[in-house]
Amino acid sequence: MSVLPSTEVLLLGPGPSPVSPRVGAALGAPARSHLDPEFMAILDDARARLARVFRAPAGAIASAVSGTGTSGMETVVANLTETGMCVLVVVTGYFGERLAQMFERYGAAVERLRVQWGRAVDPAAVAYAMRDGQFDIVGWVHVETSTGVVNPLAEIAAIAHEHNALCVVDAVTSLGAMPFDAAASGIDAAYSCSQKGLGAPSGLAPVMFAPSALARRVRCRSFYFDLDLLESYWIGRKYHHTMSAPLLFALDAALCETEEEGLDARWQRHERHHLKFAAGLAARGWSLLPEPAARAWSLNAVRVPEGADEAAVRRRLLAEHRIEIGAGLGPLAGQIWRVGLMGAGSTEANVTAVLTALDEVTR
Amino acid sequence: MSVLPSTEVLLLGPGPSPVSPRVGAALGAPARSHLDPEFMAILDDARARLARVFRAPAGAIASAVSGTGTSGMETVVANLTETGMCVLVVVTGYFGERLAQMFERYGAAVERLRVQWGRAVDPAAVAYAMRDGQFDIVGWVHVETSTGVVNPLAEIAAIAHEHNALCVVDAVTSLGAMPFDAAASGIDAAYSCSQKGLGAPSGLAPVMFAPSALARRVRCRSFYFDLDLLESYWIGRKYHHTMSAPLLFALDAALCETEEEGLDARWQRHERHHLKFAAGLAARGWSLLPEPAARAWSLNAVRVPEGADEAAVRRRLLAEHRIEIGAGLGPLAGQIWRVGLMGAGSTEANVTAVLTALDEVTR
Repeated sequence: MSVLPSTEVLLLGPGPSPVSPRVGAALGAPARSHLDPEFMAILDDARARLARVFRAPAGAIASAVSGTGTSGMETVVANLTETGMCVLVVVTGYFGERLAQMFERYGAAVERLRVQWGRAVDPAAVAYAMRDGQFDIVGWVHVETSTGVVNPLAEIAAIAHEHNALCVVDAVTSLGAMPFDAAASGIDAAYSCSQKGLGAPSGLAPVMFAPSALARRVRCRSFYFDLDLLESYWIGRKYHHTMSAPLLFALDAALCETEEEGLDARWQRHERHHLKFAAGLAARGWSLLPEPAARAWSLNAVRVPEGADEAAVRRRLLAEHRIEIGAGLGPLAGQIWRVGLMGAGSTEANVTAVLTALDEVTR
Repeated sequence: MSVLPSTEVLLLGPGPSPVSPRVGAALGAPARSHLDPEFMAILDDARARLARVFRAPAGAIASAVSGTGTSGMETVVANLTETGMCVLVVVTGYFGERLAQMFERYGAAVERLRVQWGRAVDPAAVAYAMRDGQFDIVGWVHVETSTGVVNPLAEIAAIAHEHNALCVVDAVTSLGAMPFDAAASGIDAAYSCSQKGLGAPSGLAPVMFAPSALARRVRCRSFYFDLDLLESYWIGRKYHHTMSAPLLFALDAALCETEEEGLDARWQRHERHHLKFAAGLAARGWSLLPEPAARAWSLNAVRVPEGADEAAVRRRLLAEHRIEIGAGLGPLAGQIWRVGLMGAGSTEANVTAVLTALDEVTR
């Protein structure tokens, strides 16, 4: 017999981030079925808001896939990739590698541009990697959740477009938290999640296909992720799957909050609290893994200071301070903590709380 | 600007079904991240409960995929099907056809055993269809949501197993509502949804793989639906995707309620209210589409009586009585209403409410 949690944990890991009271209340709003007129009006509203939050170009399709961020990744890849295509994937960490594997599963020949974990990719390296080959797609991760690194957007897109390659971007840990402008940067397709910068629970994956991507979509092998079928539901109101009312309502509420705050103001809030956290670390003689110019505002990769027991610190933070932070992934396991200050979690009070708690458990 | 619903609608369509207060409250329990120890304990609890609710054989894997029922269908198909396999699919309606298409998308040569919509399949027809061919898999739908028909389980499984074919069953509209016993019936793999007989919101898809199916799994093309990766998360606690806390908590609460009621008692409750509803229809000179022996207890396909305006009746039920019922799909559009009495929605009061409301709007 399990018992559901009755006490709060402050979610400052790599996601999910905390939800606001309004988003929490939206989860409990009276349910509607997936084809109910009120439901469809909220879906239309959320789609319009997602297009604006992605800053999608005119004619783009933006919506939310019924799954987590990885389902968004698979939706984008599955609708743009067919056997024999050549894809360049920039791998600056765990999620770049996942994106490369996703393209391979859909039949692409993938060339990996590998960058040391903790560094951002240099656009010149992308230009060099593309100098000879003919690539159909270039894929990369905006904010690499495993390293806290932010990669450039517009500079890489410009290079890719010179070679007539589509640009696919993972915006899982940037959307709603860091400057992301698909139209201005020339991003052709992107995906994200609901539970980080946007501040909703997980379970829906925002996706964006610009007209340039829509024009190059392929016959999708997956049924669940088939954009033609998804469009026929999102826009044509034809049954495809039973989208979850509580998740949609919570996402729409989170998107309302995002737009009421204003995207630019929201980005600045994330920057401010990231900088405050970084300054607090520096004052303690601690450091972040990425160079200052490559640091994401949403996710902070903190080097575990000498003498600290990485796992014990996380356990004590959770047990004694009710604060969750994340561990390192892959080669960074044991070497970093991942502290997310995202969505409703990006506050000055939370910066103070996590620094104070870290002081106490590493004293 | 969208406004979330503030009034209740009684969900008596083909799903989602209403949630109980306990399940609704579970949605709002304090969140945990997807690798939190408390979260994993609840996932373990839900997995054990799902195995029991499927009545899975020893050694089976039961869990919930992060998507809707169709994602469960795709997970089962994607992990058991490879190019060139031969699959027999019994098509008694819309969802049988969807299952056939799903197998085709994963490379199978599919033979369809087509049965008139509104009728159950005769196991003798399955035996006849299998007399010559060599099939790797036989797939069929237990309760066909488009017609309200229940198909046999054990009789078909016995025939399939004589031919060494795996049995894949769609239990989307039967799990938790009608007798389903994977072990006793010899079902090798099955999938369902959270929002019908189990009484949770949509967004998670229960799946069950018996050891016989696990032994014949293939290399999965999809990343999101890859059973090896899902197992490494469900059981190995290795990150694969960010499972949604509110959805898991609500599903676990719904499974607790299901088991506290008792599966047999729950099935009988569904039978009792189905029979009461059918008797009420008969008293009005109305009828159900399937023959009595083929009628599902969860979903009632009501023939639209002569002179009634099918769509107008549904609209008025919703607008004036705040009751949702469903329309017919495909060739049954305009000819039937689909009235679901499932999960927490299967009550005597709801039978009376929907009959009374139908009286008023068809008067």
